[in-house]
Amino acid sequence: MMYTAHINVMPLSELLDPQGKAVNSSLHNLGLAAIQNVRIGKHITLSVEAESQDEAHAIAESACQKILCNAVMETYDIVIG
Amino acid sequence: MMYTAHINVMPLSELLDPQGKAVNSSLHNLGLAAIQNVRIGKHITLSVEAESQDEAHAIAESACQKILCNAVMETYDIVIG
Repeated sequence: MMYTAHINVMPLSELLDPQGKAVNSSLHNLGLAAIQNVRIGKHITLSVEAESQDEAHAIAESACQKILCNAVMETYDIVIG
Repeated sequence: MMYTAHINVMPLSELLDPQGKAVNSSLHNLGLAAIQNVRIGKHITLSVEAESQDEAHAIAESACQKILCNAVMETYDIVIG
């Protein structure tokens, strides 16, 4: 069966996120001062052919560990839907 | 009150996503042939100071239209949580 995995890869909260800081400043310059703590990561969707939701999750996790997520700087979470 | 907005910005489904195609090929080369249709976009989290959830959503939408999303090539969805 075909499952869809939604994966978020975000910079670790302990690390500076320069892209997020830049966007935060730009939003303030554009008048959106109510916005704070901008952090920017990746959102990845992919289709997985698997027997069960658990197997689909395991395959997506393998993809995260092999290529999608740099564990030194990033964390990931996976939702199979 | 402080709300957290989770925003996904994805390439339009009609458009080629070269980054997704490259990752798709790499995953196949690594033995994960069960994975298809990889698409890669941005996941953005931000804090919004607002009176209500609706106001927080409106502020996040304004940020998307002003700077976070290029409407020619991308779509966005916002979840306030």
